[in-house]
Amino acid sequence: MSLYDRLRRNKMIKTDILIIGAGPTGLFTVFEAGLLKLKCHLIDALPQPGGQCSELYPKKPIYDIPAYPEILAGDLTEKLLEQCKQFEPGFTLGERAETLEKQEDGTFIVTTNKGTKHHAPVVAIAGGLGSFEPRKPLIHNIADYEDKGVEYMIKEPEMYRGKNVVIAGGGDSALDWSIFLSDIADRVTLVHRRNEFRGHLDSVEKVQELKNLGKVNLITPAEITAINGDGRVETVEVTKKGEEPYLLETDHFIPLFGLSPKLGPIGDWGLEIEKNAIKVNNSLDYQTNIPGVFAIGDVNTYPGKLKLILCGFHEATLMCQAAYQIINPGKRYVLKYTTVAGVDGFDGTRKEAPKAVVKAFD
Amino acid sequence: MSLYDRLRRNKMIKTDILIIGAGPTGLFTVFEAGLLKLKCHLIDALPQPGGQCSELYPKKPIYDIPAYPEILAGDLTEKLLEQCKQFEPGFTLGERAETLEKQEDGTFIVTTNKGTKHHAPVVAIAGGLGSFEPRKPLIHNIADYEDKGVEYMIKEPEMYRGKNVVIAGGGDSALDWSIFLSDIADRVTLVHRRNEFRGHLDSVEKVQELKNLGKVNLITPAEITAINGDGRVETVEVTKKGEEPYLLETDHFIPLFGLSPKLGPIGDWGLEIEKNAIKVNNSLDYQTNIPGVFAIGDVNTYPGKLKLILCGFHEATLMCQAAYQIINPGKRYVLKYTTVAGVDGFDGTRKEAPKAVVKAFD
Repeated sequence: MSLYDRLRRNKMIKTDILIIGAGPTGLFTVFEAGLLKLKCHLIDALPQPGGQCSELYPKKPIYDIPAYPEILAGDLTEKLLEQCKQFEPGFTLGERAETLEKQEDGTFIVTTNKGTKHHAPVVAIAGGLGSFEPRKPLIHNIADYEDKGVEYMIKEPEMYRGKNVVIAGGGDSALDWSIFLSDIADRVTLVHRRNEFRGHLDSVEKVQELKNLGKVNLITPAEITAINGDGRVETVEVTKKGEEPYLLETDHFIPLFGLSPKLGPIGDWGLEIEKNAIKVNNSLDYQTNIPGVFAIGDVNTYPGKLKLILCGFHEATLMCQAAYQIINPGKRYVLKYTTVAGVDGFDGTRKEAPKAVVKAFD
Repeated sequence: MSLYDRLRRNKMIKTDILIIGAGPTGLFTVFEAGLLKLKCHLIDALPQPGGQCSELYPKKPIYDIPAYPEILAGDLTEKLLEQCKQFEPGFTLGERAETLEKQEDGTFIVTTNKGTKHHAPVVAIAGGLGSFEPRKPLIHNIADYEDKGVEYMIKEPEMYRGKNVVIAGGGDSALDWSIFLSDIADRVTLVHRRNEFRGHLDSVEKVQELKNLGKVNLITPAEITAINGDGRVETVEVTKKGEEPYLLETDHFIPLFGLSPKLGPIGDWGLEIEKNAIKVNNSLDYQTNIPGVFAIGDVNTYPGKLKLILCGFHEATLMCQAAYQIINPGKRYVLKYTTVAGVDGFDGTRKEAPKAVVKAFD
């Protein structure tokens, strides 16, 4: 554990609403909570906000976001981040929420797989289909090298500067990261078990160009069959179809075989689960069977549930009202329209409609 | 009644979902219904779609539409119209839904105040705060001249071409229509009981400019105190504060004193009403106490209800699923994501995500 990790571990992150999942529903929760003067902190297993919109299909259009005849999933994330940034959300990214502990005073402590602790009176699970777990290649000793040269997700591209990198995979992630790292790493090798790659037209064209320029080294059809090194990755074994295996020196091995969502540890928090989703009270506030814990967006279920982003927005908004009551017991909240009352950011910014002018004509 | 009106009266408009109210919730219903291959027709008392967003505050920004950090209410309407146009909604505008009659087969006939009849198996009331009724000046015989030179809303600006027009009022509508009609009418006179007008800066500046050019004639502080004419408006009586009344020749008198929403005839349809809103089953599909009639958006109420546009979007979406079951009994609908399945318009258009390319590198 690094010094940074240890320092972080000792620090308790405090907030009003702790949001598990930084997808569209989680991000919009920050905005709605902000209108009620509540602060939010988000935990996500992915290294960036946006959930599956950013991770799985950032360049794909969505057609059913209200008032957007078409929007790319990645742009949706950008817009939601812009909308909520005035309410200064905190983020714990690249870490998976692992345990939920109810305190005597009714508040909660949520700890991640890296030991980061968060403390809040309200927890909103906006976990989508679950935390995205990487599909791992079947190499017997791969676990020994995890975070020691083997990474399944790229969290910090700068750590590859000047390094020797082997990427495995045949889809968009493998193509896009090969392109991106070709500018940063000393050498990028892309290994895929088939000759054919599957990706967006422009990604495919760009990799062809980088191959021609000698900036990306391609080995197909081939697989990485072993990892060697004293404590850290030093070489990987490349097995090309029908040929003898050989060793390739490398600092990093990055298998990008896709992510599959798993409800994961949340499933053990004592919540009522039905068909891999969390049951909530949809007739009021999307609260779960644990008072103070809500579930919103694709992760919840109720009669008539639709797993649509626009439903998550509504659920988040109603949930924030209930959170307000928990955090401000007895206080009455009067709904103010943003068009009428404007929006006051926690960063001191203010948005408001231009005032009408009252004037007599000369 | 004109020939057109009589022809229209005899024709029955048929659709799958008849939507009362063409505000944001009603417009988004068209899109969600379209995804389920259901056709919609909208009735609205206002002469254009958009509801209060278009009528009351088209130039005001809204800050809480998800993924729009800021959008003008008028632009929101444009975007929603663009999003749903591929599903070819029908419109009955400038008419108020007056009666709801349940047929023996469970379908409904809705008739407007102008006698237009609509027939549908499902009715979705997306009536916002109610139908917008104009505030009328207290002139004893004004009702005699309604639609005979007195109009409280401008439905068809072309009917004022070359005419002599008197507008009364001191807000944005009075200013904006004076500006607009100054190009069309022969003479525009704006009468207001105060010297001061209240409007957007650019509207106020523009009226000042038109006054200086002699294109808008201003009379303040003054009121129209009588209407005269044989069958149609011929003169109005102008009373300037502290002066003797005098007659002003005019073809039209347009009092623009604002609109106030009234639940109106819908209140007599046998629906359960609570605090001027329609009670619905929010734990399932936003259906009212009359099976087949739904209420969505600001017009409905349930525990925890928030009168927000984004909530209307969600309610419309869930309602459409229930409508599908009523219209296609026993048929199972499987939710398809627009990102995956694309969108097929009723006008033959198709939207879909670009396909991934499968390619081996040379």
